[in-house]
Amino acid sequence: MENKKSLVYFQSGGPTAVINSSLFGVVTEAKKHAKELSGIYGSMHGVEGLIKDEIIDLGLEDSKEIALLKQTPGAALGSTRTRLPAEGDPLFQKIVATIRRHNIGYILVNGGNDSMDTCARLARFFDASDTNVKVLGIPKTIDNDLLITDHSIGYPSAAKHVMNSLKMAVLDAKAYRKGKVLLVEIMGRDTGWLTAAGDLLPEGERPDLIYLPEMGFSLDQFLGEVKATYDRQGYCVAALSEGLPMAHINEGRVDSFGHQSLEGVCLALAGCISSRLGIGTRTFELSLPQRADPIFVSAVDRSEAIRIGAFAVKKLLEGETGQMVCIRRLSSSPYRAEFVLAPAEIIANKVKKIPADWLYDTRRLSDSFRQYLTPLVQGEVKVRCENGVFKTAHLRLIPVK
Amino acid sequence: MENKKSLVYFQSGGPTAVINSSLFGVVTEAKKHAKELSGIYGSMHGVEGLIKDEIIDLGLEDSKEIALLKQTPGAALGSTRTRLPAEGDPLFQKIVATIRRHNIGYILVNGGNDSMDTCARLARFFDASDTNVKVLGIPKTIDNDLLITDHSIGYPSAAKHVMNSLKMAVLDAKAYRKGKVLLVEIMGRDTGWLTAAGDLLPEGERPDLIYLPEMGFSLDQFLGEVKATYDRQGYCVAALSEGLPMAHINEGRVDSFGHQSLEGVCLALAGCISSRLGIGTRTFELSLPQRADPIFVSAVDRSEAIRIGAFAVKKLLEGETGQMVCIRRLSSSPYRAEFVLAPAEIIANKVKKIPADWLYDTRRLSDSFRQYLTPLVQGEVKVRCENGVFKTAHLRLIPVK
Repeated sequence: MENKKSLVYFQSGGPTAVINSSLFGVVTEAKKHAKELSGIYGSMHGVEGLIKDEIIDLGLEDSKEIALLKQTPGAALGSTRTRLPAEGDPLFQKIVATIRRHNIGYILVNGGNDSMDTCARLARFFDASDTNVKVLGIPKTIDNDLLITDHSIGYPSAAKHVMNSLKMAVLDAKAYRKGKVLLVEIMGRDTGWLTAAGDLLPEGERPDLIYLPEMGFSLDQFLGEVKATYDRQGYCVAALSEGLPMAHINEGRVDSFGHQSLEGVCLALAGCISSRLGIGTRTFELSLPQRADPIFVSAVDRSEAIRIGAFAVKKLLEGETGQMVCIRRLSSSPYRAEFVLAPAEIIANKVKKIPADWLYDTRRLSDSFRQYLTPLVQGEVKVRCENGVFKTAHLRLIPVK
Repeated sequence: MENKKSLVYFQSGGPTAVINSSLFGVVTEAKKHAKELSGIYGSMHGVEGLIKDEIIDLGLEDSKEIALLKQTPGAALGSTRTRLPAEGDPLFQKIVATIRRHNIGYILVNGGNDSMDTCARLARFFDASDTNVKVLGIPKTIDNDLLITDHSIGYPSAAKHVMNSLKMAVLDAKAYRKGKVLLVEIMGRDTGWLTAAGDLLPEGERPDLIYLPEMGFSLDQFLGEVKATYDRQGYCVAALSEGLPMAHINEGRVDSFGHQSLEGVCLALAGCISSRLGIGTRTFELSLPQRADPIFVSAVDRSEAIRIGAFAVKKLLEGETGQMVCIRRLSSSPYRAEFVLAPAEIIANKVKKIPADWLYDTRRLSDSFRQYLTPLVQGEVKVRCENGVFKTAHLRLIPVK
């Protein structure tokens, strides 16, 4: 009884469609461990809640609302982009105060590579200060850029959203005899994992051209490929990562108020196509639904999101700390995978790019990429609606006294 | 037997998520009238197919593919923005030649207010030239701006897509403690019917502010309302019609290549917010999925799309011509409606705006608007997927000899 400690879970970085499914998995598993846990808590807005003592009692939430977390995009507990300073900073004493006040013994950090830095720093600090608190990371990012893990939770669903949106774009582009160039802008500042998903679509539904940051970028080559495609079939759909290395094109672009243009790569390139090729062009930025669409969630992704949360709870209670749960693929067909642990500090702040030998050219990626992604986007989820709109969890978020 | 004529159907104007459901309804009904019809044809790319003799035989399509039309967005037969010239133009003789070649006696025009001009002109021409061809219109436009009809087929589904996208946007905007201003750009050049749909969302999921073309637009008022909302709650989600009357703001905006900026209203206003209020702002243009999303289709809309196609076939065979099928609402709760005919020429080229007494202010529309739209967005549709992507019809499009 005296050894009972509470568990606190928090969300960090950009939201995804399934981060709250991991929260569901954590709460559901933690409830099975009432003998070992004195409370199941949430820290509001990531590590900020630990610093400011904004800790809520997840045990007081209605079970119906907890179940609805599975179809609730966004970050149900609020997120943060706050990064922890170096150990020794007085801020750590605020965290220690919160931990003592609520008898916290276990922390789960659900986030991406910045958040794994938080996970690693907290674990190191607790170890070094002989504070008996264990910390584990649950991977989450639509960018799929975390090292070691086969893929990141949230990526398969975002990839599925991208595939379906690109199919809509191609259907729309084909409607007219005299078409346009359609530039589709897809998330991914450093990597092309999401944009590459378009390559899985079958012939006739696939974008004609795919540009990823890993490929570099030549404006002349781009214009040549767009023109050749347009001349051949009367329209052209190109999928482009927002993070294409084209600073040289954007440089100095200011809007009419004189400040740095808010235009993305596609709007800038649409201007180039207009002026240099004289072809009508429109842009389509996939935008927020990539991380917030509850419909095109992959059943595989949701299931893994839930199970990885449960796995993290069990490993915390076994005494593991400073690790992130990773997915190790055992087989692609049929798809089989297991969860393993890897040190959070070797994952923190680093970026996994698409392997060079998976890239082929702007018309087609390699078979290896398709074998990798195909099993991850399978399976549809049921979504409950009310008055035509998807239902979401309404949590009470009652502070722990 | 000698009186048997063929029916030709075509699609015109912007695609919607359910225009192909009307095609499904037309084909299914027409097949029941084998005694009266010598063929069930489609004209490719709208009236262009009649001009260029590109007529395909819908009777040769596989019934499985015809059924898949119900979940196929885009224009399965291709669309057009071509407008017919004044009667007397030699082009009408080309149409007459196609009609004689294929023994066409019935034409269905599926489109919006430009397309009803085509419908009216064709009917007038055939009447005046004693050509025995009947022409009826089937309403289709996500803009909901057709006169007389209670609503346009396609609008309820697009409105439902807008509502769900706005809910995603609000969930995303709330994720961080220190939020941004999020400007959501929604289709509607002349009217705010689609943007107004955001008003149906419940408190806490609704955009904070809604700007419609019918309300006029004052930049100072806009900036004041955004600032007040942001100061109060730390973020602000505003839904704006692409057609806001703000030419005075866009005027003279050119990009760094010196040509007219491709920026929409939201990007232009984001610049104003940055420079005048100094608040971080992002934009989210709902873009193509508003007319191409097969998922957030309203069951009411799809059902009406199918039944209105069938109704149009029956009325053609009864000898009606020069009319558009309209929806007359009998009751909102429970929702009941019937189909009636109205002259296409009084609908052609005109625009139905939101009634002035349905507008209230940028925070809330009137109850009348909500009573109007609520029954139309009800009901979900089942969508078949394959490898994580929605399935669509693949038509053979075999030319009639």
